[in-house]
Amino acid sequence: MMTAIAPSQSGQRLALLIQYQGTHFHGWQRQVGQRTVQEVIEQAIASVVNHPVSVVAAGRTDTGVHAAGQVAHVTVNSPIPVHRWPGILNARLPADVVIRAAAAVPPDWHARFSALWRRYRYTLYTDPCPNIFLRPWTWHYYYAPLDVAKMAAVLQPLVGRHHLSAFHRSGSNRAHSWVEVQAVSCQRRGALVEIEVQASGFLYGMMRLLVGLLVQVGQGQRSPASFTEIWQQEQRHLVKYAAPPSGLCLLGVGYPESPFPLALCTEAMPQFQLASVCPELSIA
Amino acid sequence: MMTAIAPSQSGQRLALLIQYQGTHFHGWQRQVGQRTVQEVIEQAIASVVNHPVSVVAAGRTDTGVHAAGQVAHVTVNSPIPVHRWPGILNARLPADVVIRAAAAVPPDWHARFSALWRRYRYTLYTDPCPNIFLRPWTWHYYYAPLDVAKMAAVLQPLVGRHHLSAFHRSGSNRAHSWVEVQAVSCQRRGALVEIEVQASGFLYGMMRLLVGLLVQVGQGQRSPASFTEIWQQEQRHLVKYAAPPSGLCLLGVGYPESPFPLALCTEAMPQFQLASVCPELSIA
Repeated sequence: MMTAIAPSQSGQRLALLIQYQGTHFHGWQRQVGQRTVQEVIEQAIASVVNHPVSVVAAGRTDTGVHAAGQVAHVTVNSPIPVHRWPGILNARLPADVVIRAAAAVPPDWHARFSALWRRYRYTLYTDPCPNIFLRPWTWHYYYAPLDVAKMAAVLQPLVGRHHLSAFHRSGSNRAHSWVEVQAVSCQRRGALVEIEVQASGFLYGMMRLLVGLLVQVGQGQRSPASFTEIWQQEQRHLVKYAAPPSGLCLLGVGYPESPFPLALCTEAMPQFQLASVCPELSIA
Repeated sequence: MMTAIAPSQSGQRLALLIQYQGTHFHGWQRQVGQRTVQEVIEQAIASVVNHPVSVVAAGRTDTGVHAAGQVAHVTVNSPIPVHRWPGILNARLPADVVIRAAAAVPPDWHARFSALWRRYRYTLYTDPCPNIFLRPWTWHYYYAPLDVAKMAAVLQPLVGRHHLSAFHRSGSNRAHSWVEVQAVSCQRRGALVEIEVQASGFLYGMMRLLVGLLVQVGQGQRSPASFTEIWQQEQRHLVKYAAPPSGLCLLGVGYPESPFPLALCTEAMPQFQLASVCPELSIA
């Protein structure tokens, strides 16, 4: 391990591919007195390089929100070869956060500003019977049946560049509510309903407010026309419910050239398949 | 809620279908000063019925071992309708244990002695890149490639009635090592290798010792002939490594007539599918 060296401009910038279960984190961003992902990673790196570091993430996920493919950058003064960083850090990180890969990037590469898009998945588990395997990653929603085709239909017009202040929670310091939505999907797989949105950026609270309103359409409590009117006419006061953070996961982040092999990104979050896991159970 | 009533023979016997993540439990069985699944469930029930209860499980899983379909019974004095028990208990249980279903059973029905078989799954995750979603449920094994066909072949002859003291950890009070193995399987699904064994009963430590030895065959460190000789000739001293508990899960328990709907049992533990979760990632 190195002895203390002051950080300098000659440091190496690293891109990190990060996963975490958000359940026991107070979100990404460092806050005094709270356990945050940024802080545990910064502490792990600082304990290796012996100088304070600042880790900048592509998406500052909220309390309880997970990440399958978060990307961050950090500048370090260290002779450690890039490929050894994940192993070294994972040995120092708690069980609910992991570094999947590290890559050397140019000094001006920025995890947040260089990103072209982020993609989030929101997962609902609709079977009344609780399941411990799905609990940390889903919203257990079984109060009413959901019309997923209707949800998918009202989601589709969101693709494009829109002013989405209807889904913008107060408390962020972002100056505007323009979002370029690049792709959306809403589909049922057995007892699971998965809602995915890929956009240039996400407003504070956007996915959870969007899903909260979308579920009202799915259960028939709100008409498709009303859903569309609310976001097109920016009726923020009518968006009352935020879906719980447990169902939300940052799937991945896109860059002009990805610092990481594509396979690491596409296999980041598994699909949970519930059917027929134990076919031989009929043996009696 | 009822006022205190002394337990009586007239109590109702309930069968419970239970899931838990074993990570933070010191196994099923109650032990002074340890957090165990049995204790948290007994406390939850006792707090409802106002009398002490004893919960008996089909399989007493070890520290760190999970259950997707554990079955237990308990006798309660309570007017609560059977179908309401899961909701009432889940509201009182911690996040890492859940009651999936409750059923009324005859007073002589016994979760352990009435069972015909138990089925366990051991899951290995073989990709070098760690994955936070799989971590709690798998053994991250990437030290050497595994020949899964060879592992499946040496596992097959275990089907039948055998004296398996080679896989019997000391410390149990079981008088003999006879096991009726009913079904075995070992298969690769992408980066996952799943080993399943269904048997009339399991010896203390059996699955973890079996998997530990099987992995030696898979990585070529031990010959198939040596594997077979060890268990057939009961060479317990040659079985040195127990696979870690994180990969082991009690999938289900079989009875002459299941107290629970079959669908609840077959959908207990999801398959984790890693491929192509994010097909649109190529949008850039």
